[in-house]
This record gives sequence, C-alpha cells and structure tokens, in this order.
Amino acid sequence: MGRLLAKELMDNRVPNVKLVGVSRSTGYLYRVHGLSPDELRGELWDSEGFTKGSALSLMRERAFDVLVELTPTNLPSAEPGLSDVRTALSNGIDVVTANKAPVALHYRELTELARSTGTLLLFDATVGGGIPLITLRRLCMRGDELLSIRGILNGTTNYILSRMQFEGLTFELALREAQNMGIAERDPSLDINGYDTALKLLILANALMGLEKGLEDVKVVGIAKVTQEAVAAARESSMSVKLIGSVDSDGRLLVAPRLVKANDPLCVHGTLNAITFKFRLARDLTLIGHGAGEPTVAALLNDLHQVVEFRLRGTVSK
Amino acid sequence: MGRLLAKELMDNRVPNVKLVGVSRSTGYLYRVHGLSPDELRGELWDSEGFTKGSALSLMRERAFDVLVELTPTNLPSAEPGLSDVRTALSNGIDVVTANKAPVALHYRELTELARSTGTLLLFDATVGGGIPLITLRRLCMRGDELLSIRGILNGTTNYILSRMQFEGLTFELALREAQNMGIAERDPSLDINGYDTALKLLILANALMGLEKGLEDVKVVGIAKVTQEAVAAARESSMSVKLIGSVDSDGRLLVAPRLVKANDPLCVHGTLNAITFKFRLARDLTLIGHGAGEPTVAALLNDLHQVVEFRLRGTVSK
Repeated sequence: MGRLLAKELMDNRVPNVKLVGVSRSTGYLYRVHGLSPDELRGELWDSEGFTKGSALSLMRERAFDVLVELTPTNLPSAEPGLSDVRTALSNGIDVVTANKAPVALHYRELTELARSTGTLLLFDATVGGGIPLITLRRLCMRGDELLSIRGILNGTTNYILSRMQFEGLTFELALREAQNMGIAERDPSLDINGYDTALKLLILANALMGLEKGLEDVKVVGIAKVTQEAVAAARESSMSVKLIGSVDSDGRLLVAPRLVKANDPLCVHGTLNAITFKFRLARDLTLIGHGAGEPTVAALLNDLHQVVEFRLRGTVSK
Repeated sequence: MGRLLAKELMDNRVPNVKLVGVSRSTGYLYRVHGLSPDELRGELWDSEGFTKGSALSLMRERAFDVLVELTPTNLPSAEPGLSDVRTALSNGIDVVTANKAPVALHYRELTELARSTGTLLLFDATVGGGIPLITLRRLCMRGDELLSIRGILNGTTNYILSRMQFEGLTFELALREAQNMGIAERDPSLDINGYDTALKLLILANALMGLEKGLEDVKVVGIAKVTQEAVAAARESSMSVKLIGSVDSDGRLLVAPRLVKANDPLCVHGTLNAITFKFRLARDLTLIGHGAGEPTVAALLNDLHQVVEFRLRGTVSK
C-alpha cells in the first residue's frame, strides 16, 4: 500500500502535498525538497540511501507535517503504530492511518491528544478499505442520527464463507485456498477469530456513534466452527452465513456468524465488504465495496485532502 | 417533504438555521423572527395566515438567506423551479433543491450563475433521495477518479419490475398495484418512460463527471414493453430485468431495461435505489438506499449544513 500511495503522491493526486520521506522496518529515506520517482523505483525501495532508524527517529530528526501510518495491526500492543501516532500528534504532526489497532484500542486517548495539540487524526482507511464510511457519516449525513450498524467488515472470512457456500468446500479447504491466493495471511487468526472485525466495529462505534467501548465490550465469535452443513442448510433457505459485526441501538457490540437473507443488500460475496447504516431519516443506507488492498489508497488520499483543507483554511468539517 | 423538513428545522437539526417562511401554490407565510411550530400545525398549513403570492413574490418582498426549492419536476419547462432557482441565485440567496428538472436541464447556466453571484446551489436531494451521491463523490473520494456510473435510480419502476419478477404480475397489474399503494403517481409516465431516470443520470454525469450533456444526449428506453415472459426468463437464469441508467467511460448516457445478475450488488428489489460508481483506485463502490420520500429530507438537511459552513467559514469543500 505504501508504494502505491507514494506513486499517487508523485502523480500529484493531492495538491500541496509533497512526499519528503518514507520509513520502513529497515530504515528511512528523507529529502527535504521531496523524493523523486527514481528514488522510489522498486529495486531501490529496499536498499540504497535508507538511513538506519525507525519512524520515531525520522520524526525526531527530520521536519514534516503529516504522517501516514501504515504499519500492521498487532494485538494487544497496537505497536509500533501506537507510538508512531502518539509521537506525531504530540509533535504537531497530523496523522492519516490505515492501522486499526491504535484507533480501535486507544480512541479516546488519541482523539483527546489530537484536540489538545490542534492536530488531525484521520482514519477512514482503517475500516472498509475504499468505502468511505467515516467521512460519509461525518460529512454527508450531518442532519441525521445514526441508530445502528451492521456489516461484513472482513473480506478474508467473506471469501471463505462464499467458497463454502458456492463450491461446497469445507472451512479448512476454503481457508487453504484463500491462503494460496494471498487473500488470507499465513497466520489468518485475526481474521478467522473475528478480532479484525471487532477492531473495525469498535472504530465505527466510538467514532460514529459516540460510544466509549473497548475490546472487552465486544462479544466475538469467529468462523472456525462454521460447518459445510450449516452453510448448505442456509443456502437451501435462500440465506447465507456471514460474519456480521453489529452495533445495535442499545450500544451492544457483537461479532458472530449470522444468517443473512439472499435479498438483503448486505448479502455480498467473495472478498467484498458491505455495511448497512440505519439512520433515523434516511433509514437503511448500505455501502458495498473493496475492503482491503489498493482501494484503501483512495481513502488515504481523501484523508490527505482533508488535512490540506484543514491546514490551508484552518478548519475541517467533523 | 416540505412539512417534514419544516419539523426537522423546528427541532434545530441544523444549528444557525431558522425557518422564516414557507411558500405553497396557495400563498406564503413569513415571519422575520422565525415561524413557530404552532403556525405549521397540519390544520393551519393550508389556511390561515398565508399571504397570496408565489415564491417569487416572497423573494421580492421578504429577506432570507437560503431557499429550499421543493416544487415538482415538470418537463420540458422545468418551471416553476427554474425561475425560483434563477431568481434566488441572482439575488444572493443560496439554493438547496430536490427538484431534478432545473439542475438536470440547466446545469451549466445555474452553476455559472451561482459562481458569478458567490452563492451555493446544492442538490444532493435530486438523485437517490437519502443516498448522498453528490456529496460522497465530492467530499469522500477526492483523490480518486470516477470512471463510470451504473444505477437503479427510480424506485417506482424498480417496484414494478420486482413485483413482475417475484409475484408473476403483468406490467399493467404491477403498475396498477403501485398506483393503489401510492408508490406510482396517477400519471406515472415520467417514471415508466425512463425520463425520471434520465434526468437523474444527467445530474450525475454533469456534476460528478464534468460532462456537458443535455437530455437529447441520453438514449432512453422505458419499461412499458417489458413482458412477464422476459422477466421470468431472466429469473430462470439467476438474473433480473432492471431499469438501468449508465454513463460509460466514453461519456455515453443510456437508460434502458437491462439484465443484472442476481449476485451483482446493484441487483436490489422493491422501491430501493442502487448506484455503482466505478473509481480508478477504489474500483466498484455501490450505494443502496431509499430514493424518495422522507429519507430525502436527510439530504436536504446535509446540504443545509453545507450552506451554514459556507456562510460561517467562507468556504465549502467542492
């Protein structure tokens, strides 16, 4: 994702934003006047010119205005993302992130830190990839009330359940296939056990419904025990078994395999994600799209546009 | 829709907006310090206190900042909406509208007028009712490119086609049922002949894809000739016949009954609307929701929020 984002920034997709540094586990590359496309060519990305040191050292030693945090989600520490985000916000650096863990597990701390330092923390890329869930609720539905949320928030488990339904595969076979295709990771536990969905649900509940929930407040059941028989029986009744994350109108958070009717807009297959927001006036509004990979770059770019607007005009709609 | 909007404004859903007047075909009611809930009670709405005169006389004789234009769509004149919108924008009054015709048929003239007078013309309520299509593209997908659009933009025809598919009704019977239920109007021609969809498609094409198309550029085929046999045959093949409006990547606009696969996210039934935007990065993004009636008030309220932001801060994201 970092490479594609870098390429888009080089192509000037966000006016007034210049890419001055990239940081990887092996070190960082920084040019005060901006990196050149040549410096980010594939073969160079891993090797030449990188200074040893982490993103933290980059923040200590070099000047920049926005951090795009793309490190992987780790539980329970949320590191290294958590320290990166904390350090950036504390130092007046705006943050755009695709890393779920810091936002899901430390929402209140990080939003208060951002408020106190006058910085922005934007995270539409953490949930639903290319589907702009956070920004949609904040900027497109401002006179309405969000009553509840229900969604398929994890593409890997949706792929596995779809293959079980349409190809008659067992859970184990479908999982192995997904791993071979690069859809599931080598250690797929965070997807399978439902905790990836739980983290995303926490972000939606806390950021969009004003709740103050922690992971301990989410009842989580994964899909490892979903049998081929259960999936086939559901199909017989024009239903599908889907891993659904939901926040109901009483603020209860649940992640579990649920039956969804075939004609429910939420009932999408393959790696697609789908979310139904229930609003008081607009009623059910469903968004369907790609929840991972390259489409996520669209969310990062839009968040960067919001940062620019904030910095140029001194305000951002929230 | 006007009554529900009035109620929401009385409930202060948009801070800093006060309802000072309402205009109907029978006359208008205006109070410089704001209308009271009592004055808008159902039984009074039609009778007492209304001054004879149109919205135009209201604009000439009384002071206000924002016009919410909710008159019905008339072809080919686009009146009385067109004159209302022109007069408002010319006089420095911002406009929020749910009336398709002026925006669809006079997009360039009206947007240029708004630019020249420093006013806003917002129209998210004209397409997709409670689905915030215009604002989503403008504020949530700013770094991405919109390549094409495909959608079910008319709930009445979708209801008729759904009843033909699932209940085996003929077109005539399904239409009569829709009329009895108040889903189709007494004169349903604008829905049935595809021109309601064509107007909405024009708005999306011109406002979101930078095209400059007129109604003469849209190839329009309605649903009156869709037979029960065709719908049944489609169903046999796990497809549905849907009235689809589309703008392809070459800028061609088409409204016609098309076959849609049952597992396509666009394949929604009943009165639901569904739109798939194809983006370069985010790829397919589908929105599904209620395209008419009360949910549309959500779009009006959000557009009013944008007006307030513009007036308080001197800028609005576009």
